[in-house]
Amino acid sequence: MKLIRFGEAGKEKPGVCVDGRYYDASGWVRDYDEDFFANGELAALQKKLNEGITALQELPAGTRLGCPVAKPSKIVCIGLNYADHAKETGAATPSEPIIFMKSTTAIVGPNDAIMIPKGSEKTDWEVELAVVIGKKASYVSKEAALDYVAGYALHNDVSERAFQLERNGTWDKGKGCDTFAPIGPWMATQDEIADVNNLRLWLSVNGKKMQDGTTANLIFDVPFLVSYISQFMTLLPGDIISTGTPAGVGLGFNPAIYLQPGDVVELGIDSLGTSTQKVVAYAAH
Amino acid sequence: MKLIRFGEAGKEKPGVCVDGRYYDASGWVRDYDEDFFANGELAALQKKLNEGITALQELPAGTRLGCPVAKPSKIVCIGLNYADHAKETGAATPSEPIIFMKSTTAIVGPNDAIMIPKGSEKTDWEVELAVVIGKKASYVSKEAALDYVAGYALHNDVSERAFQLERNGTWDKGKGCDTFAPIGPWMATQDEIADVNNLRLWLSVNGKKMQDGTTANLIFDVPFLVSYISQFMTLLPGDIISTGTPAGVGLGFNPAIYLQPGDVVELGIDSLGTSTQKVVAYAAH
Repeated sequence: MKLIRFGEAGKEKPGVCVDGRYYDASGWVRDYDEDFFANGELAALQKKLNEGITALQELPAGTRLGCPVAKPSKIVCIGLNYADHAKETGAATPSEPIIFMKSTTAIVGPNDAIMIPKGSEKTDWEVELAVVIGKKASYVSKEAALDYVAGYALHNDVSERAFQLERNGTWDKGKGCDTFAPIGPWMATQDEIADVNNLRLWLSVNGKKMQDGTTANLIFDVPFLVSYISQFMTLLPGDIISTGTPAGVGLGFNPAIYLQPGDVVELGIDSLGTSTQKVVAYAAH
Repeated sequence: MKLIRFGEAGKEKPGVCVDGRYYDASGWVRDYDEDFFANGELAALQKKLNEGITALQELPAGTRLGCPVAKPSKIVCIGLNYADHAKETGAATPSEPIIFMKSTTAIVGPNDAIMIPKGSEKTDWEVELAVVIGKKASYVSKEAALDYVAGYALHNDVSERAFQLERNGTWDKGKGCDTFAPIGPWMATQDEIADVNNLRLWLSVNGKKMQDGTTANLIFDVPFLVSYISQFMTLLPGDIISTGTPAGVGLGFNPAIYLQPGDVVELGIDSLGTSTQKVVAYAAH
């Protein structure tokens, strides 16, 4: 099953994607939030959907998509989780996962604009596999970890490198600016994914391929990460883990290349769709 | 005005503290959450309260208190914001604020237990002045910053030093364990505080005074911090900023002293009340 959320930013409604078409499911469910996942409504929705979509209205072309999950309590990100990316940034391959957090106010829809923050000169891209938690997870084992996963989504972990690395703090400072977390188009449940550890992921800027990797090269894989993070903090249903990016970010070029107003970023992951963000200059919003 | 939340964990109701007594205000307001602050309900509640509390029922002694704010979207913390604390940890005085984030799943009531995480040997205390945001804040000036503040609360920024400093990540790893954010007893609105930059704050362990500082020694004061953080991420109504801790944490002793099951931590800030946490060993919960 593929969950989408659609409509005006901040007022999205739940929907589903079936055979490439988007449908309004707001008559069936309230929203895809913590309660939805915690109350087993995902399975109930799947059951209803299996009975047919004739009751659902197809959405008109051009309908805006939002993040497929509503109000996650947190976004936990993993740094330097592909060896080729660690190398391009000049960092050592980590001995255990690097965790940082992204403010949830950074979340936007998959095809919304990326806004360069005020004073930013180093806004960068990062295509990432995001994991959506389906069940409250505290001290879970690697073996049991996938039982706590609702599904997966495409995420551009947009990053301001000067804020992240040159402003005397943890990475959080360069990760949580408004529009820095375009997520979607959909959240695919686990059954939609043949092998989460073998998905191609790519990103292009203005049509030029910048990143082209595979989750087969993750240093720490999805079950390990869910288990690992749950040793340090409790993951709630709807929470998002972003698993790191492969080589090819702007910071890795010599000289570095950063996003400019007018640029167009496209990204995708096998089975998780594609997204497109136009880059715009800062404007009061 | 002093806002409290009371009752069973996860099902708290809103109340107020007047002349040292606690009252149920759930007949007047739904909860102290993002919508409450965003919709101007704080001023409406104050107005109603000014007309008298005779309609409110006093809470029985021993009623459990929760965090006075419901479901903040994030807790943004400031590191090393008192020169004496920076010195005791061996760190340089920061040239600009260090930002890190604390998982909101760490929040507990002011007098709930602190649970030592599984495998932890270095659980430490930090008395801090917490700021509660009252209005959406993005790129606000220092001069306007206090217009975006709803009030203040007492916070113990409990920290696991090995997770924070020795586990190859940002500080977030050692700050977000369950029970690591006892907040309260109340949120005091700004008019309750004569001078937020001149509040004494202290913490004792088993009756022995460990921290005894004043917010007059903050390197970066409250207006500066609200303005500064809002340059990197949007602060939502109900969000919490924790402003750093003065000297006297366990890590600063030689040899270091860490919390053990059975220890009792007491802390307080002028006008913001006191809280007491018993330390317990890890148990599945």
